[in-house]
This record gives sequence, structure tokens and C-alpha cells, in this order.
Amino acid sequence: MSGMTKAFAGNFFEDFKLGAHIVHATPRTVTEGDRALYIGLTGSRFLLGCSAQAARAVGYADAPLDDVLVFHLVFGKSVPDISLNAVANLGYAECRFHRPVFAGDTLAADSKVIGLRENSNGETGTVWVRTTGRNQQDEIVVDWVRWVMVNKRDKGAPAPGPSAPKLSPVVAPEHLIAPQGIDFAKWSDAHSGSAARWDDYAVGERIDHVDGMTVEEAEHATATRLYQNTAKVHFNQHLAGNTRFKRRLMYGGHVISTARALSFNGLGNAVLIGAINAGRHVAPCFAGDTVFAWSQVLDKAALDGRKDLGALRLRTIATKNQPCDAFPGEIVSGKFDPAVILDLDYWVFMPRR
Amino acid sequence: MSGMTKAFAGNFFEDFKLGAHIVHATPRTVTEGDRALYIGLTGSRFLLGCSAQAARAVGYADAPLDDVLVFHLVFGKSVPDISLNAVANLGYAECRFHRPVFAGDTLAADSKVIGLRENSNGETGTVWVRTTGRNQQDEIVVDWVRWVMVNKRDKGAPAPGPSAPKLSPVVAPEHLIAPQGIDFAKWSDAHSGSAARWDDYAVGERIDHVDGMTVEEAEHATATRLYQNTAKVHFNQHLAGNTRFKRRLMYGGHVISTARALSFNGLGNAVLIGAINAGRHVAPCFAGDTVFAWSQVLDKAALDGRKDLGALRLRTIATKNQPCDAFPGEIVSGKFDPAVILDLDYWVFMPRR
Amino acid sequence: MSGMTKAFAGNFFEDFKLGAHIVHATPRTVTEGDRALYIGLTGSRFLLGCSAQAARAVGYADAPLDDVLVFHLVFGKSVPDISLNAVANLGYAECRFHRPVFAGDTLAADSKVIGLRENSNGETGTVWVRTTGRNQQDEIVVDWVRWVMVNKRDKGAPAPGPSAPKLSPVVAPEHLIAPQGIDFAKWSDAHSGSAARWDDYAVGERIDHVDGMTVEEAEHATATRLYQNTAKVHFNQHLAGNTRFKRRLMYGGHVISTARALSFNGLGNAVLIGAINAGRHVAPCFAGDTVFAWSQVLDKAALDGRKDLGALRLRTIATKNQPCDAFPGEIVSGKFDPAVILDLDYWVFMPRR
Repeated sequence: MSGMTKAFAGNFFEDFKLGAHIVHATPRTVTEGDRALYIGLTGSRFLLGCSAQAARAVGYADAPLDDVLVFHLVFGKSVPDISLNAVANLGYAECRFHRPVFAGDTLAADSKVIGLRENSNGETGTVWVRTTGRNQQDEIVVDWVRWVMVNKRDKGAPAPGPSAPKLSPVVAPEHLIAPQGIDFAKWSDAHSGSAARWDDYAVGERIDHVDGMTVEEAEHATATRLYQNTAKVHFNQHLAGNTRFKRRLMYGGHVISTARALSFNGLGNAVLIGAINAGRHVAPCFAGDTVFAWSQVLDKAALDGRKDLGALRLRTIATKNQPCDAFPGEIVSGKFDPAVILDLDYWVFMPRR
Repeated sequence: MSGMTKAFAGNFFEDFKLGAHIVHATPRTVTEGDRALYIGLTGSRFLLGCSAQAARAVGYADAPLDDVLVFHLVFGKSVPDISLNAVANLGYAECRFHRPVFAGDTLAADSKVIGLRENSNGETGTVWVRTTGRNQQDEIVVDWVRWVMVNKRDKGAPAPGPSAPKLSPVVAPEHLIAPQGIDFAKWSDAHSGSAARWDDYAVGERIDHVDGMTVEEAEHATATRLYQNTAKVHFNQHLAGNTRFKRRLMYGGHVISTARALSFNGLGNAVLIGAINAGRHVAPCFAGDTVFAWSQVLDKAALDGRKDLGALRLRTIATKNQPCDAFPGEIVSGKFDPAVILDLDYWVFMPRR
Repeated sequence: MSGMTKAFAGNFFEDFKLGAHIVHATPRTVTEGDRALYIGLTGSRFLLGCSAQAARAVGYADAPLDDVLVFHLVFGKSVPDISLNAVANLGYAECRFHRPVFAGDTLAADSKVIGLRENSNGETGTVWVRTTGRNQQDEIVVDWVRWVMVNKRDKGAPAPGPSAPKLSPVVAPEHLIAPQGIDFAKWSDAHSGSAARWDDYAVGERIDHVDGMTVEEAEHATATRLYQNTAKVHFNQHLAGNTRFKRRLMYGGHVISTARALSFNGLGNAVLIGAINAGRHVAPCFAGDTVFAWSQVLDKAALDGRKDLGALRLRTIATKNQPCDAFPGEIVSGKFDPAVILDLDYWVFMPRR
């Protein structure tokens, strides 16, 4: 075994086999240190992840960790195996949060290859994987499908027959997993920072989140290292200096975190994420850019057997260097205002009156 | 309810009513993660907040969190309600630390409006609030008065009758709250980093803290987000680029933290802050500036019934980009050396011989 | 006692006495916050320090903290007393890790002066110290010898007779302290991220760690403050602007951390550091530089009575702004490729088949 095989250069398209199950490295015990750093890097203020007292008042044993932080930690583990040689992250679907994660839990990740399709140029192919994050009891905490365009190592390598999975464009409300054994009857709006509850939001309503957040290299890189995400484009300026952008790319997940944190102003009671239906990184974001965001309510759903909690389907759009009071978005289908960097479609849980 | 009312743009002068009680959002469970990040961002070395072993030796159950960190966390909560539309932070008074905060405690904040005075231009007014931080047992951990100049939303809005509270220019030593059930007899100077105790400081004595600390955007912004302080001027370069400074302003509290951390060199045994009598941000500080500090002993007070601990009243002056060996300060009353950025008057507790 | 004596300007060469024992300030309770911040700032992925579950599976009570983090914390404490007036850090030797450190442990440090030699110019001298880090039970967790060139305060001060300690060029394998009561039989390669075990490495083998990591001012300064290392050159741009480099110097220890984190790719099972034989900071590193690394296996040693674990002696070389696929290193003895910044010789423990 030579040094070059010991140091892993990542999987190429022809390395993925349909049905293959990949156990990702470095299960990670999440701690209060991760929570503090996440708050420090994003400014997140959603009450449930900030106050153990508020979490206990509704029935949690402790404050659950931010759903987006959990997503990033599990996602990060999948990067060395799935997307080190990715040309593009094409999409996410069917992401569901199954149960809370607490400080002290150990998160592990694995992926199953559920689709493969070589591109006509013979140089790249699309790989679909279902990635699952599990806790130390081997219980699923989150799972999703993502698909990435991956380089081939060898253009001449034989292509597998094309197989693309059928994916739901949106997680159906009846498939959302509301927190069990929890009752938001004792939720405090004064403490959550918003008097608006599920009942107060109307389908179609748009909310400008007002504030802007400038992101520095040290901030997005520290966040991304915290998740042990090893994608080179975020860290290696020596390499990035020779790309068309001339610089490091911000991890798209940090844009999601920043937009989600900004969305507190207008969605303070959106305490939990139930599912991510779809996400698109419309344009790259770089250090020095200021992120803004606005949201639209796409749908509302009551939850079976729950009077304390409802689900809102949101579309949050983030821009760079442009406030969102004019709600910049999709101009025609698939074509966005040039300031837009993120288009995220997701379900949140919000206390009802 | 429209999206614009869901996203909160902050209170304007005419929104404040004398006697109003405002419960601030996002109680926050403080953790070892906050402590580590605070040390990482400030370099603080005061022993009591660093070593659980040293804290236990004098009677604490655990290492108390840094007083200035506690101040910032509570202050940050008050920002969205009190100072989002502030033109200027005019002053602090009567700040007292009532009891220690430990990892695991949840801090909540509320404010009472105790003074209002419209300015003659009809465009702004001064708001005085008493802000209180409480732990999960609803015990007061810190309180203070601050006053800010706040914009009016509508110049024509009727002004309340002027009412300014009477404030003590200095917290009287008998109002300081020394830590209860604690005995510094077993305090170790070797471990605290200073052989100088309360007995060794003379009123009038000046101490150059020697070292300088350069602060980067990522550092002050991460600290300020950690406190969930939402003042736009610290975060939004898109906005800040259009101000006369052309850039983000460092949170004045980060200057306080940095100066306090620097003051370790010369005041290593100033283990606890008892009170902040007054604080003035004399000039703005920006990323790239190097902060220096010096202190003068303004007063000394023995504490009733305590042979182990005394109080020192200090004036710490911080500068930017100028060492303090020449003790730059107030040239004539209210007019400072141009390098000065902070003038802080406070009481510390220090072990006695 | 004047203010200038209260603020400590560091020891000069003539202040060190052979045989003197110096207790360093600020014992520090290490926490999950330190671990998270260390991961965030370095991207370290070695499993044992990331997963409490993996650590428990081999017999630890909890995940031990990263050895290099422990080194930095203890080293940082020694700086104010030993190297505040150092002109150069000349070397390390005989560094051994004695026992694991867990979150909640309190680390204290002390040093003994074991060698002194004035330089012929009469302006500086070399000081050798043995520095020891201890936990709250006063058990040794790490110790090492380092030597630094320190300024004299007064050129005319009398010089002590020269005395340089005899140091081992390498820690003998039989002096390595393998973790007690631990059995790596249940170690998971899938989780550790590497299928290569001790048995798979050959003496002489070279491994390019492939990835690069760009470091920003806010990152190295935050790491170095976390260790409460007070060396001015890392923090004070006002001072550094007047040096030949015109800027702050990155703490050499952050280069070690970065190189060690990069070495995961190729040495994923190098779960513990047993000893550091020698370390040389060949050239300075600055913010904006991208660090790369490669390693060579210098030696292999079985461990007495251990079938689960072996020792590998490694030489890890870090470069700036130059990938390591061509293994840039020592050109002739003591003369390095200009890209090289670090030459580190150390023992790691690695699970056996």
C-alpha cells in the first residue's frame, strides 16, 4: 500500500455502485461547545436551541441542538466519500428531521447510492445518495437525498445503466415527524421574541427579514471546519486563487445557516425544522458579502393529534449585498434576480395559539 | 398582521412609555462553550473564570463565568427592544453584579423605562432603562441603568413630559455585593499570576498594562453574535459602507472585554467585578485597530466583615494604536487624547493579604 | 511597589537561575468548549478526540482531548515566564504525553531551568527549561524540554557559567507511555477514516497529505488566545508593523496543529501522539498562507505487552503555499526547500491488525 493510496483523493463517478452502502468516517460527539460556536458564527436566536429552561418547559430533557447544525455535522461526514470530486451540488430532497439531538449525543453518518447517470460528455456523472445521520443508539436523527455531479477518473471507464430515483418534490405534511412527548402549551412568546404564531401566518404572505450579515473568511471556514467538511474549495486559497473566482467559496450550508438565523426576525416562533423539501445554491457567496433574506409562506398544515403545533412550508430566499424589502426572487422559472444566492424550500414547526 | 409587522424594526422614541416593563427575548443557557469562546476571543486570564479547581478552593461550586461575559449576554438581549434605533449609547450607571453565573445557568433579561426626554430638535429623544439579568431561579445576577439617544419614528409624535432619573455617579462601597460564602484565604498568587494584592495598590497609582491586542472583523463580530446582540452597525457591511466610517463599528463591549483582558497584566488579582460606575465609548474602534490599556486606582474600600477581600475602584482607559506607557487620557474635562476609545470606571474585588 | 512592577514585562536572561522552579500562572479547566473551538480552528478529525462513543469502546471514560491541544495549553502558560523576551524558539526535545486529559480536568504548568548559556555577544543567552503540565491530581500529563534565546535586560549583567543539558535526540520507544487499561481491539477503521494500520506502514514510506488549509489572522490569533499564550508577536499589529515582516507572526504551534490535522488524510489511525522528539519552525508563517504537509515514516516500534497498538516515528514537514506531492524537504542537512515552514519529528500510537 503506497502513501498515495493511504491519502484518500475521494471517490470518482466510476467508484460509486448502485445500492452500495458507505459508512462515513469520524462519528462526532456534539457538545455545548458546538452550540456556542454555532451561535457565535451565525447569531442564531431561536429560543429552543438557546434555553434549556424553555426546552424543559415544553418537555425536552435539555435544549436540542439547532437542526441546521445537525444537518451540517452529518453532511460534513459525507463529503470525503461523496463529493470530494464533485463539480456541482445539484440538489437536496426528502430531508426529514426525525428526533432531537442533545449535547453528549454522538452522530454518525452513512449513505446509500440510490442513483447513477453518466453525462453525455463521458467526463462526469450524477450520483444520488440517501444520507442518514444516526445517534449513539443507532436511531435516525436526520436523513435526506442529495445529488451531485462527480468527475470521472477515467473518461473511458464503462458507465452503469442510468437510474435516477423518484423523489418527492415536497415532503407531504403527513410524513413530517413532529416532536414526540412535547407540548408547546407552555411556550412563551415574550421569550421566543415573536408574538406571531402558526395561526397568524397566511399562505402567500411574504416577510422581509430586514437585517444583513457580512461573512468573513475566518467565519465561514471555522464553521465549515467545525462540521469537519473537507471540501477543498472552502479552505485552500492556493488552489482557489487559480479558479475563475480567484478565491475560496463559502460553504453553501453557511449561507443556509445565516439565512435561517436572519429569518428569526419575522419567524421567531419557527422553532424547529421539520423537513427540507428542496434547496438550490443559485449563486456562489464569498467572504465580504453581506447576506440578506426574505421568506414566503408556501403552505400551512395542521399536524395530526396536535393542537399545540402546526407546520408552515416556507421558501426562504437569500441574497448577497442587496436588502430584501423588494423581495428579489425568481424572475422566470429557474432564472433568479442576480443578487439571489439561495432558494430553500422547507417545513418548520411553529406553536399554535 | 403583515410581514412587516412580524419582522420587528425596533422601538422608536415614542414607543417607550415611562414605567413600562419590557421582557427581552431569548433567555440563554450559558455553557462551557461560551467560556471557551470568550477566552479565545479576548485572551482573558483571570484565574477565577479559568480554573474550576481554584474556584472550588475558595468555595465556589464551579468556576464562575466572567462578569463581563455575563454583562454582554444580558446587554445583548436588551438591544432589539431598547437600542435598535439608537443614534448613540450615552452612558451606563449603577451596574452591580449580584451573584455568580455558572455553566448551565439560564440568563433572562428585562428592562424598565425609568426616564424619557425628547431632544429640542424633535427628531430624537433620550431613553433611560434599568436592565436586569436574572438566572433560572429568577434571582438577579446583574443590573444597570443605561441611556441611549433614540430616533423618533414620526417627528410630529407628541413628547412625554421630560423625566430623567437621579443616578449615582458611583456605586457606594456599601452597596457592592461581595461574593457570599466564599473565602479567599486559600487564594494562590502563583496561580493567579500576580503577587500584588489589594493591600499593595495605592489610590492614585497608575498601571500601564503594556500589551496590545489587534482585533479583526471576524473576532468582534463573532463575540457580538455570541451575545446575540443584533445592533446592525457591527454586522452589516452593506449598510456600514454607506456611513461616514465606511465600515462596521466594533461593539463597544468588545473594547471593554479586550481592555479588561489586557488589564490582567498589572491587575491579575482583580478577580471579580463588583460594579461599573460609568462607562464612555470615547471614540469608535474598527477592525485592524490594536487596543492598549492603562488603569488608575481611584479609590479603595474595605468590605464589611471581610478580611479576605477588598474593593478597588479603577479607571481603565483604552486606546487604539497607541501604547499606554505615557498614560494618555482626559486632557481637559470631557476632552480626551485622540487615541482614547474607552473610559471605564468600575469596582473590582481583590484578595487581601 | 509601582505600577511598572505590577505589570510584568517578562523575565530576561539574567533573571533565570539554574535549578530554579517556576510555577506558571492560570491553571485552566479544559472543556468541551476548547475541544469544539480546536476542531473549528484546525479541522482535526482524529476519531479518538471526536467521538466519546469510539473512545469508550476502547476503554476510555470519555473522549480524550487532542494531544496537541493539551501541549498548546500547557505551553501557553509557560510563555509569560519563559519566552516573553525570547528572540527565538530554538527547539523542543523529550516531549512525552503521560496520560489522557478529559473535559473537566484542570491543567497547571511549571518549569525548571535546566541549562543556561550566555551568547558571546553578551546581549542574549540560551535558556533550557523542562516544562511539565499536570492535572488536578498533580499527575503529569505532558512534559518536554525547550530552549529559547532570551534577551538580557542589561548587557553588563554577569553571566552564569555555561551549562547545557544532555538531551536525547529521540525518545526511545521503551520510554513511550502507551495508554494504560485501553484495548484497541474494538477499533473501527470505517469510523476512523483509514484502513491503514500500524502493520501497513513501512519505514521510509512517504505520504502526501494532499489538502491545503489557508489560515486567517482571526483564526491563528483566536487559537493562540485560547491557549492564553501571550507572545506579543502573534497579537499586536501596532508592534508587528514595525518589524521586518511588517505583520503578525503565526504561532508556530498553530502550524503544528494545522499540519497534524492535514495529516489525517493518510494517517487517520495515528490516534495518539506518544512523544515529540524534535521540532523546528524552519520559516515563519503568516495569515493568508496556505499550509500543506507530508510525512515520512522514520521508524516503527512494537510496544511491550501490547498487541493492539504500535508506535510509528514520523517526520511531518509542512510548507506554505506549495503542495507536497513532490515531498519538499531538507535539501542538505539543515537547509530546507524555501517553502518549508515546519519540520516535526514525533511518535504516534496506531492500532495494529
